Amino acid sequence: MIEDLKKTARDALEKTRATDSDAAGADEARVLMAHGGGGELTRELLAEHVLPRLDNALLRPLMDSAVLPPLDGRLCFTTDSFVVAPLVFPGGDIGRLAVCGTVNDLAVMGARPVALSLGLVIEEGLPLALLDRVLDSVAAAAAEAGVPVATGDTKVIERRGEDGLIINTAGVGVLPEGFTVDAGRIAAGDAVLVSGHLAEHGLAVLSVREGLAFETEIRSDAAPLNGLVEALLATGGDVKFLRDPTRGGLAGVLADLAEDSGLSLEIEEAALPLSRAVLGAAELLGLDPLTIANEGKVVAAVAAADAERVLAACRAHPLGRHAALVGRFTKAAPPLVELLTRGGGRRLVSRPYGEQLPRIC
Amino acid sequence: MIEDLKKTARDALEKTRATDSDAAGADEARVLMAHGGGGELTRELLAEHVLPRLDNALLRPLMDSAVLPPLDGRLCFTTDSFVVAPLVFPGGDIGRLAVCGTVNDLAVMGARPVALSLGLVIEEGLPLALLDRVLDSVAAAAAEAGVPVATGDTKVIERRGEDGLIINTAGVGVLPEGFTVDAGRIAAGDAVLVSGHLAEHGLAVLSVREGLAFETEIRSDAAPLNGLVEALLATGGDVKFLRDPTRGGLAGVLADLAEDSGLSLEIEEAALPLSRAVLGAAELLGLDPLTIANEGKVVAAVAAADAERVLAACRAHPLGRHAALVGRFTKAAPPLVELLTRGGGRRLVSRPYGEQLPRIC
Repeated sequence: MIEDLKKTARDALEKTRATDSDAAGADEARVLMAHGGGGELTRELLAEHVLPRLDNALLRPLMDSAVLPPLDGRLCFTTDSFVVAPLVFPGGDIGRLAVCGTVNDLAVMGARPVALSLGLVIEEGLPLALLDRVLDSVAAAAAEAGVPVATGDTKVIERRGEDGLIINTAGVGVLPEGFTVDAGRIAAGDAVLVSGHLAEHGLAVLSVREGLAFETEIRSDAAPLNGLVEALLATGGDVKFLRDPTRGGLAGVLADLAEDSGLSLEIEEAALPLSRAVLGAAELLGLDPLTIANEGKVVAAVAAADAERVLAACRAHPLGRHAALVGRFTKAAPPLVELLTRGGGRRLVSRPYGEQLPRIC
Repeated sequence: MIEDLKKTARDALEKTRATDSDAAGADEARVLMAHGGGGELTRELLAEHVLPRLDNALLRPLMDSAVLPPLDGRLCFTTDSFVVAPLVFPGGDIGRLAVCGTVNDLAVMGARPVALSLGLVIEEGLPLALLDRVLDSVAAAAAEAGVPVATGDTKVIERRGEDGLIINTAGVGVLPEGFTVDAGRIAAGDAVLVSGHLAEHGLAVLSVREGLAFETEIRSDAAPLNGLVEALLATGGDVKFLRDPTRGGLAGVLADLAEDSGLSLEIEEAALPLSRAVLGAAELLGLDPLTIANEGKVVAAVAAADAERVLAACRAHPLGRHAALVGRFTKAAPPLVELLTRGGGRRLVSRPYGEQLPRIC
């Protein structure tokens, strides 16, 4: 088991380094400043690396803007930049992350994601093979979500001395009439649902960055949640609020929920979906798993009467098998988030103050 | 209404200028890694620096996505990342550039820009006063264009040793029925119109970066073109193609036009709107002004019969006073772009091969 884990961490590192050491051998192709200059080399980069991987009917005309058909309903619009280091980690890479992050920001609004933009800011010297790998991931995740990359942009910046790539994705989606997430509608007694194992993304990135080998491999949970959210909403249950617990983790979302609803939250430690591997790794590192980023989980506030039904729908979905009801809203004032510990005690859960794990998403 | 908008633009500009002179002190506040961590410091950065400057009804709810009302027509969607160095240059800064670039990518599709996203990737150590200045510029340019910043994201990355800030903007717009730019519709005899003085943006950035003092100051032309394009289209003239000549300059756009229309282009050197200052600076630097980036100009292909009328509308707009008809399409094969020089000769105009001026937009 430990050997497996070490191997995975090693493999992921090697993939990243492979490109590194070959490049010392002068013939590995790398991105040049001129690839971002808007001239022939830019066209070549797009024609040979980007477009064949992302090809679709919206992107193909390569105009200044993509043209989408008229959409029936309100429009959702969101953006996110991704700065993860290393670029490749167990369970994913920056490409998968960039697609899932933006798809999920639309999904948790209850919107159907329609199209993504992809803004690449590449450091000079990035191996083209690594760029290709990331673009393959973008394409795979976009296909998994069923959302095309409709428009994009590529810039090249000076080398910082490590493989560097920043990705921005923006996304548009359609919000059907009759659904609006609104923490203001939450009432005492409403349930908090978490769609699966927490803290995996942050710990996966950290493990490969720090060269740590945990007992069991921890893989990033990065996944597009639009299908899962659709399944939850299709129950007809009263889902009052949805959020993906990324930066700041579950603790951040719960703190926001208390603030925005004006209600307190009681969370049962024993009910939190935390794998043994995550608990072990977090303890080893002195980190609170509740503050660690997830990239394929959703937190839902659901009317008490509908909670079990929504939970069942969640568990029936491949991305929600480990879903759990973890707590409920109460009228206790002032609005705070309390963890009812396994030992029978109470501990305050607060938003992480600064930066625990830089550049994990 | 117009007075309100003008006042907003004026106030924002004044704020921009004020911060400039205050910003020297040594114990100047700077951006920390933790400002990007998603915790309390991120909320503080947003609450004290970003949101007060960009406030509008779409942004205010601060949900995972902005919710826009249903839009009547096809949707245009575009993205662009901005990596200019230095961040501030004569005539503008990265904030103004980031708004104008994306507004213009929508405008040249014939679309009415509706909303922008703003993705900030800030290097640790960036003075907060400089960030504030850039955000004021974003606000001023957005007010000038009449397009709100509806959604955003902020990340912080490790310091590279210089003031560093990368901005991605994406934009959505509405494309009215009945208008589609289409280089395929261009016919021999159609005219090429350029909306004003060329090469100012690239030379302005280069001048401050290289510490060059030209005889006359060259200021970036960065400006939102949606109003100008609206004026051109309102003539009812047959405008077949529009493009803003940014990276790659006019030469890049003309090369694309020849390729996409299958026609040749004859451009008259004497007709090109080039200021004396630009000609002098370009000569000094050994650069071809046709390959230098613009950020507030549009190139239009117009049916021969409508060319004068569209030109007149362009000249009547404050951003199009120096507009000129610079050439026409011909059936000469193979499709090439030729410059009819002042001396009576012919010179081939081609797309710049690599990168002449890195990080100018």
